[in-house]
Amino acid sequence: MSSTVVTGIAELVTCDGTTTDGLGIIHDAAVVIEDGHVAWLGPASGTPMTDHHLDVGGRAVLPGFVDSHSHLVFAGDRGDEFAARMSGTSYDGGGIAASVTATRAATDDELRALVALRVAEMRAQGTTTVEIKSGYGLTIEDEARALRIAREFTTETTFLGAHVVPREYAEDRATYVELVTGPMLEAAAPHARWIDVFCEPHSPHAFTLDEARAVLVAGRAAGLELRVHGNQLGHGPGVLLAVDLGAASVDHCTYLSASDVNALADAADTTVATLLPGVEFSTRSPYPDAAALLQAGVSIALATDCNPGTCYSSSMPFVIALAVREMGLTPGEAVLAATTGSAKALRRGDIGRIVVGARADLTLLDAPSHVHLSYRAGVPIAKALDVQA
Amino acid sequence: MSSTVVTGIAELVTCDGTTTDGLGIIHDAAVVIEDGHVAWLGPASGTPMTDHHLDVGGRAVLPGFVDSHSHLVFAGDRGDEFAARMSGTSYDGGGIAASVTATRAATDDELRALVALRVAEMRAQGTTTVEIKSGYGLTIEDEARALRIAREFTTETTFLGAHVVPREYAEDRATYVELVTGPMLEAAAPHARWIDVFCEPHSPHAFTLDEARAVLVAGRAAGLELRVHGNQLGHGPGVLLAVDLGAASVDHCTYLSASDVNALADAADTTVATLLPGVEFSTRSPYPDAAALLQAGVSIALATDCNPGTCYSSSMPFVIALAVREMGLTPGEAVLAATTGSAKALRRGDIGRIVVGARADLTLLDAPSHVHLSYRAGVPIAKALDVQA
Ligand SMILES: [Zn+2]
Ligand SMILES: [Zn+2]
Repeated sequence: MSSTVVTGIAELVTCDGTTTDGLGIIHDAAVVIEDGHVAWLGPASGTPMTDHHLDVGGRAVLPGFVDSHSHLVFAGDRGDEFAARMSGTSYDGGGIAASVTATRAATDDELRALVALRVAEMRAQGTTTVEIKSGYGLTIEDEARALRIAREFTTETTFLGAHVVPREYAEDRATYVELVTGPMLEAAAPHARWIDVFCEPHSPHAFTLDEARAVLVAGRAAGLELRVHGNQLGHGPGVLLAVDLGAASVDHCTYLSASDVNALADAADTTVATLLPGVEFSTRSPYPDAAALLQAGVSIALATDCNPGTCYSSSMPFVIALAVREMGLTPGEAVLAATTGSAKALRRGDIGRIVVGARADLTLLDAPSHVHLSYRAGVPIAKALDVQA
Repeated sequence: MSSTVVTGIAELVTCDGTTTDGLGIIHDAAVVIEDGHVAWLGPASGTPMTDHHLDVGGRAVLPGFVDSHSHLVFAGDRGDEFAARMSGTSYDGGGIAASVTATRAATDDELRALVALRVAEMRAQGTTTVEIKSGYGLTIEDEARALRIAREFTTETTFLGAHVVPREYAEDRATYVELVTGPMLEAAAPHARWIDVFCEPHSPHAFTLDEARAVLVAGRAAGLELRVHGNQLGHGPGVLLAVDLGAASVDHCTYLSASDVNALADAADTTVATLLPGVEFSTRSPYPDAAALLQAGVSIALATDCNPGTCYSSSMPFVIALAVREMGLTPGEAVLAATTGSAKALRRGDIGRIVVGARADLTLLDAPSHVHLSYRAGVPIAKALDVQA
């Protein structure tokens, strides 16, 4: 077992919670990596001997970003739909149904290659863990296939058969819910850690409170842990459902009532509010007030929601910059939400912070400070660090 | 003299104005480059024989972005000032004066290396022409030095001795204006094409209408062409001054009155309104309505204003995405503003479009369409194409 020391770290952002700001910054630091895990960290002056040595030349090192919400298993894109939305012209390309059609038509190898490209694109922007949902198959075989392929890239796979009610079940929703909670769940569960549902009374294609509850309860009975898409298009029951069932995360939270915020604050140890500002950017929606959530004691996370419809950005640095500009987070709070916050939303203690024993998932900035992620918005300064160890 | 053909172009965005949308898109196209210029373009089926061949694999090719407004000659950064502004805490790091101090203290080689890094960073994001201003020297020697160094990287160098009134002249502004219009101009002019002034009654450090006019008139007498920083912090006389003197561009235009818009529309052949949405992003300012400007018949451009204080983004794709999200431009209009629009703001006919005889400044997207620049916001999909020819 060989070891590597990373030196030349102008600012090591451990996110270990030992400082008031939570960032646990060590200046002029070094990190020793052994067998893919952090074996030592501290001031460079105390660096122990190792087999290999990597000097990052006075740059900042952060925990790799944790993108706890993505939909990477799809074929085709919906650039025309985006252009029409931004141009204020009407366009019916079918929305999610268009992605479902393209995804079903793709071969396994085609889908696998697309996911591989997207995961590599994320890694090149500093993301070292990604959650991947199904939800563009919506048949037993296509959902199981999406999860099988996703599992080749991450342990954080999420069964989202309840993404939308497919066209063919529009007049018979109950039958689709039975499918999702029955044979589709059975086929998906071996390849998934999580189950998720789009609970949204403001869309006729999404699921009602009762339907969403049925999906989550069935998923839990099948051994899956819970996540919820909620409160995206307007006020709704998604947050309270997530809290009630002890879901790890409720995602979007674009529209929150005072009782939603109170419930999230009370459940802060259990349920994280995952904010997806790339969606608000790409759909011209209002941004939720993340600063107010922190103030209220809510646990928050940031993720991309990378998907072909409402946010085709895979960039966690972009999400961080938006959270600072539009949601009132400080640059440091946004980094915490994108690392430890998202790790918590995945109930992972081994990622999202740089501490002894954690996975050695490090992200290098071509900059001296984490502040530059928002200060240099749009500039690709972050990348996952490849270390020989 | 050798020639290269670029093939595999799924979408060639010529920006040649031959289609209603101005984009002049050719699908499945090829471009022949000879001696650094476009020698032929058209459908791939008609491609002539050449010495070399580059297949871009079904991607989109656009004119290289023209970043017509930047301040790249500076040392140090002001990340702390940015973090304080975003956190709502007070901070007096000195603002522009801090950058002036750091820049004066840097050696020529240090400054040259910093500019080289920034120009390379821009090129890696698709920018093939950049305008570079002085303005962090504010002495005769330091301004001339900044322009000498900038000239090593671009022909589009701009003397901005009238960036701010330096601290040491705060009580004697007239003397500083005499310096800028006299010996400093004389030292700067051999290295500059343009002269610029920060005309802004809302800042005590900027220049009044009369001071700004004196600066521009002196610059023109010294053979320089005119640009103006105006209407950034509130309504003001910058736009009308620029139009009155026939400046090539008035930049920011964050606050425009109806008479400003009318004047810009009447002067659309001469004076471009250059919008800098990265500044509004990084200072939490309101965005101007670019769609309304187009509607009124104003010529518009997009640029970064890359600088250490109010926008340290060098990313034209980011600027394009912001212009679509926040300023009402369609994805195509934003591309035009960042190419032909910015070329017009620099009075350059040889860049900003892909036509026979133009410079072969091409930008390649890792995407099939220009729409992806805003659809995939934050993702580094653009890069300047290096072609052997
Ligand atoms: Zn989602
Ligand atoms: Zn400027």
